[in-house]
Amino acid sequence: MPEDAAPADAAVRAPRRHDPDRADRLVDVTLDVIAEHGVGGATSRAIAAAADVPLGSLTYHFAGLDDLREQAFRRHAERMAGVYEAHFARVRTHQDLVDAVTDLIHGQAGADQRDWAIAYELYLAALRDPALREVTESWMRRSRSVLERHTDPLTARGADALVEGLVMHLVLSTGSMPRADVRTIVARVLGPSTDPGADQ
Amino acid sequence: MPEDAAPADAAVRAPRRHDPDRADRLVDVTLDVIAEHGVGGATSRAIAAAADVPLGSLTYHFAGLDDLREQAFRRHAERMAGVYEAHFARVRTHQDLVDAVTDLIHGQAGADQRDWAIAYELYLAALRDPALREVTESWMRRSRSVLERHTDPLTARGADALVEGLVMHLVLSTGSMPRADVRTIVARVLGPSTDPGADQ
Repeated sequence: MPEDAAPADAAVRAPRRHDPDRADRLVDVTLDVIAEHGVGGATSRAIAAAADVPLGSLTYHFAGLDDLREQAFRRHAERMAGVYEAHFARVRTHQDLVDAVTDLIHGQAGADQRDWAIAYELYLAALRDPALREVTESWMRRSRSVLERHTDPLTARGADALVEGLVMHLVLSTGSMPRADVRTIVARVLGPSTDPGADQ
Repeated sequence: MPEDAAPADAAVRAPRRHDPDRADRLVDVTLDVIAEHGVGGATSRAIAAAADVPLGSLTYHFAGLDDLREQAFRRHAERMAGVYEAHFARVRTHQDLVDAVTDLIHGQAGADQRDWAIAYELYLAALRDPALREVTESWMRRSRSVLERHTDPLTARGADALVEGLVMHLVLSTGSMPRADVRTIVARVLGPSTDPGADQ
């Protein structure tokens, strides 16, 4: 069946025929399906059904399921990296940096359970498929380079790992952690201030 | 088919009939299947096939697939917590603690890719199914309580999160991190020594 062939019941689904951004939308729908059912459940059939498009549409727009999955994970990583980056836009002093990292952790990096589910699906998929490490690597590099505008590379690496670990423990926990406690640990990892005249 | 009914080709599989620890073995096989195919791929059928037992054997020994999965995750968490704990058995001084946490991270917490794949499968499953948070919570509590023998609860929480985040970034990365760098970050999170006469 060619890409735009109408399915038998197309008459009742008419609005869906105007779908100029179908490839783009399929990438987002893939993220929804991965969030809900995991990578294992994100089959071509499940994605086509969730997007309400014929199965052939996936083959038309993507080189295969692996390609679609990789594009979806890449989009998710870019979005999360964008949120991370925006968080540090106003950082000027070491104190600002401590507060920004603290707020990032305390607010679970601006992401909800769905976002973290997709992120952990990506981590797992990357463990099994080294081709996806390029996506996780470039995400990590980007996060660290944001921190490196404000601190040295080793400190950036430690702080980024602390964000990862604390957010994961907060997401997986039924309890919470007072902001002041998060800040204490963050301040230690970020080390002493290099601001002129500052004392922390 | 009752639990011990021989399948049609039992004659060629004779050794498998002596299987007194079948329930125990099924829990381990479930971990293997989860490691390879993910929670989504760990169906009753896949587990029974991997264990080479009739499907009815799962129903006989477990209340259901959820029960088997939970027992498998619990076993994995207990094993990993045991390795973590053993790591700190000889810690006496603050320096020992810094070295033990450093080695734990540098050695990826004594676990390989398979172990981490299962752990991340558990994290994801717990995100989706709050019943499994009891398993992740008790694992986190146990790790922290090991650290709390040597430091205060807040520092223990920070150090445990750092281990989680740095190991995750190392597992997902194609690069490595020099031990001395890991140690620098660990020493910061663990704070100043409280050992008499020590200077770090």
